[in-house]
Amino acid sequence: MKKWKCTVCGYIHEGDRPPQVCPVCGAGPWQFILYAPLPKELEQSLKTAFAGESKAHVRNLAFARKADQEDFPEVARLFRAVAEAERVHADEYLKYLEGVVGGTEDNLKTAFENEMMAKDDIYPEMIRQAIALKREDVVWSLSRSRDVEGRHAALYKDALSALTTGREVTYHVCQVCGYVFDREPPDTCPVCHAPKKNFKRIA
Amino acid sequence: MKKWKCTVCGYIHEGDRPPQVCPVCGAGPWQFILYAPLPKELEQSLKTAFAGESKAHVRNLAFARKADQEDFPEVARLFRAVAEAERVHADEYLKYLEGVVGGTEDNLKTAFENEMMAKDDIYPEMIRQAIALKREDVVWSLSRSRDVEGRHAALYKDALSALTTGREVTYHVCQVCGYVFDREPPDTCPVCHAPKKNFKRIA
Repeated sequence: MKKWKCTVCGYIHEGDRPPQVCPVCGAGPWQFILYAPLPKELEQSLKTAFAGESKAHVRNLAFARKADQEDFPEVARLFRAVAEAERVHADEYLKYLEGVVGGTEDNLKTAFENEMMAKDDIYPEMIRQAIALKREDVVWSLSRSRDVEGRHAALYKDALSALTTGREVTYHVCQVCGYVFDREPPDTCPVCHAPKKNFKRIA
Repeated sequence: MKKWKCTVCGYIHEGDRPPQVCPVCGAGPWQFILYAPLPKELEQSLKTAFAGESKAHVRNLAFARKADQEDFPEVARLFRAVAEAERVHADEYLKYLEGVVGGTEDNLKTAFENEMMAKDDIYPEMIRQAIALKREDVVWSLSRSRDVEGRHAALYKDALSALTTGREVTYHVCQVCGYVFDREPPDTCPVCHAPKKNFKRIA
């Protein structure tokens, strides 16, 4: 008898096929995966597929913006729709990558660690490379990202120390460098100095 | 004298630093990159950074959904804000990857070719691997994506043959398999059979 795990609530079902509806959380059959370790080579393929679909999602959003700039609003909508579809595909593979999406407290810890690694290891190494190759434009781009990742880490740390603050926060994100504002934003971005009109409100 | 290229309109500026505002399209200084070929090793680093930030964007959106499920709406908002920031970073690196974002007609061709490659080469190979390893759950996931990529390719082809149709299309995207509807959607998805309540309207 096969075992199936609900990837929403963790319920285990026994049977030849997954149930039509999870009896605990109501999830559909597509939320179930086989309750068995994933072979390493298949895990690698799913990681590759996750990366490919994530990149396609972001690339299509950039294509949509370009289509809007060039006054093709219908094509822009198509690119946005397909971008959303690629995000759904990427999500599908996350289900299989054990431990990638955990409970919220674990997710905050994972997200914090990823930001610290980006800020302290990954970006500094790339910045050194760009300096050595005399590409000041790339140095600026990477340095802005590095600074912003530090800010993200701080926000995650705050959230970890108070999972529920009771504070209604409206976030704004600088569309030039990714700085995240958790209060009324100032007139210019503290990292890239872009003016306020470049800040996007997150619902 | 250095040369700088506006990544929005292609204007070339000469000077030690990029201009404060592009005289042709009004873009800010951060839209300018050095007008010189990117060293191969730096291009590789920027591709890696683009992949890393794209994955972080999608992962944070999944974390946000989980936080909403677990009734932490404030943490969900934080994850969505940082997800948007990581998308901004990914976009920043796309500027340097020549030819990735072109004009809209070229972007449609690129997107069409990517979908065909996914449908005919990448997914079939992964599906064969999953069959050989007896993971029917992974076979289902990958097969749904493969079928949907074929649909995306058809939509891109239509858009290429008529860049401007004059038709006001409202797209819906199946949140289970990524199927894109360009007309009033039916009661169930033709690929994964999920009911209509799983379709998301794209503005």
